[in-house]
Amino acid sequence: MSVPAQTAERAAEPIFDRVALVGLGLIGASLSLAARRAGAARSVVGADSDPEAREVAAALGVVDEVCADPAEAAANADLVVIATPVGAAGAVAERMAPALADGVILSDVGSVKKAVIEAVSPHLPRDGRRVHFVPAHPIAGTERSGPAAGFAELFDGRWLLLTPNETVDRAAVAKLSTFWRALGARVAEMSPERHDRVLAVTSHLPHLIAYTIVGTASDLETVDQDEVIQFSAAGFRDFTRIAASDPVMWRDVFLTNREAVLEVLGRFTEDLFALQRAIRWGDAETLQRHFTRTRAIRRSVLETGQDVDAPDFGRRLRQGGQDPTSSD
Amino acid sequence: MSVPAQTAERAAEPIFDRVALVGLGLIGASLSLAARRAGAARSVVGADSDPEAREVAAALGVVDEVCADPAEAAANADLVVIATPVGAAGAVAERMAPALADGVILSDVGSVKKAVIEAVSPHLPRDGRRVHFVPAHPIAGTERSGPAAGFAELFDGRWLLLTPNETVDRAAVAKLSTFWRALGARVAEMSPERHDRVLAVTSHLPHLIAYTIVGTASDLETVDQDEVIQFSAAGFRDFTRIAASDPVMWRDVFLTNREAVLEVLGRFTEDLFALQRAIRWGDAETLQRHFTRTRAIRRSVLETGQDVDAPDFGRRLRQGGQDPTSSD
Repeated sequence: MSVPAQTAERAAEPIFDRVALVGLGLIGASLSLAARRAGAARSVVGADSDPEAREVAAALGVVDEVCADPAEAAANADLVVIATPVGAAGAVAERMAPALADGVILSDVGSVKKAVIEAVSPHLPRDGRRVHFVPAHPIAGTERSGPAAGFAELFDGRWLLLTPNETVDRAAVAKLSTFWRALGARVAEMSPERHDRVLAVTSHLPHLIAYTIVGTASDLETVDQDEVIQFSAAGFRDFTRIAASDPVMWRDVFLTNREAVLEVLGRFTEDLFALQRAIRWGDAETLQRHFTRTRAIRRSVLETGQDVDAPDFGRRLRQGGQDPTSSD
Repeated sequence: MSVPAQTAERAAEPIFDRVALVGLGLIGASLSLAARRAGAARSVVGADSDPEAREVAAALGVVDEVCADPAEAAANADLVVIATPVGAAGAVAERMAPALADGVILSDVGSVKKAVIEAVSPHLPRDGRRVHFVPAHPIAGTERSGPAAGFAELFDGRWLLLTPNETVDRAAVAKLSTFWRALGARVAEMSPERHDRVLAVTSHLPHLIAYTIVGTASDLETVDQDEVIQFSAAGFRDFTRIAASDPVMWRDVFLTNREAVLEVLGRFTEDLFALQRAIRWGDAETLQRHFTRTRAIRRSVLETGQDVDAPDFGRRLRQGGQDPTSSD
């Protein structure tokens, strides 16, 4: 199963002895495969409450060891990563707390940081064991779910955002950064509050909108559903992909980053109403001015290397001319 | 410049002698290159009111002949295609009308059909010349604009929707269908009203939403713009691509398909408010139910072959692991 690293160098020595992953979904499985590719962990043990996920992970050899109980996985680990939907992080931390080894780094991969920190922190041991809690969020994923969806390259070139508090051991933060860099990620640090505001804009609101529009389209009685699907142009087609993301994960994101999401949603609605008004009143100038402005933002995204400048992501190239792209 | 056909067979004989394209943008240029690839036209002449577009088209050899005046291009053509933004179609038709040859097929590529038909029809000759007006819309495009963005494979496997009225010569419709099939497209027919309603859902509303959200994100003072761009996850990144589409083309789409767009926009807003309410009140069940339902729609899109079932369009595959995908 070992895949040669393409952007990450294989570590001379494993960075962690025993990595425990709680949650064997897309991210957990990819984390294990990426760590194996990099030689960054001597062994990886994975826990999942879902028997099917455990079975698939074991059958595919995604981790070295599979178990049901997070506490069993966490015992003797020097890195424990909570990779469940964010709503489960608190309960998982509570369950694992008695088993956490002295000196362990405890981290997560949640798309929301403030709520995870609030849920996990009360369960950190207060009996003298040092547990270094370093919350993290890899900005990576696909619309697929489950352990079979994982792949070692998922984090290559993507950002890993760390949101440690000011009192945490800096050596632990540095070690976790080194680990993620070995897995291919770029690492940055920010406050949990800022993280949640930025992600509300760049990820949470777009997902909410995509979920909404795909639902709206499927409810319209004025058009034939088969036609909507058959003639789905790039706009809608791209939205269906985003709206195919894991329902439980996203439910938890919206429930736990409520304030930031509602705030940007309010702004979005105002702006949408302004464009709606321009359409209703035939205000060509407002429409063209707005549409011209958004083009510049796309250029910025390309300049920072967050996307490739191929029409429609170069699907045409990949498909050898068989599936050209459409955005009309 | 001749590119071997990959999905379309090269015609034994050209289907049209002289094709006139009015508007040398992405679609016009691609149409010419696809026709050349298929050997479907003996010659292609292109007109554009923009000197720069003419210059680029001539320099790249996108068409056989370039001119400024649509009437000059249309003279002696047996197929004339209006490939301007839809708002210009009426004026172009008026300008060309005196030059249209007896028996010519007049078509277009606009994303809106009712308004184009209303704008063009009054200018059709009433002096005995037979002009077969067959409105058309290829559901294909990219976020790029201009003649340099054109490529011969753009229409391969994509739908070409024809919306002729009941009185038009069926032989003309059949001939235009044959032409588009030679260019790689799949052809279907529907009424202009139905076309405009379906496209309002699958294309126009998604573009409006993408334009809105990218503008909203760039206006927020609670987050750092550089961070929004730097950490743009798949949701936002995909939206920036859609929102980079041609401003004038899209201005015209919203102005000319106003009613259908406003109707689906109203439905969308209702649905968005329902989800907003669920977030505000912590209604986990409503959120999860909605997000689960939209997954099924993605499956349908994949089943009809309108997209590829690779995570994030297989960008990871194309990039050889250098730019994996992110939807988180």
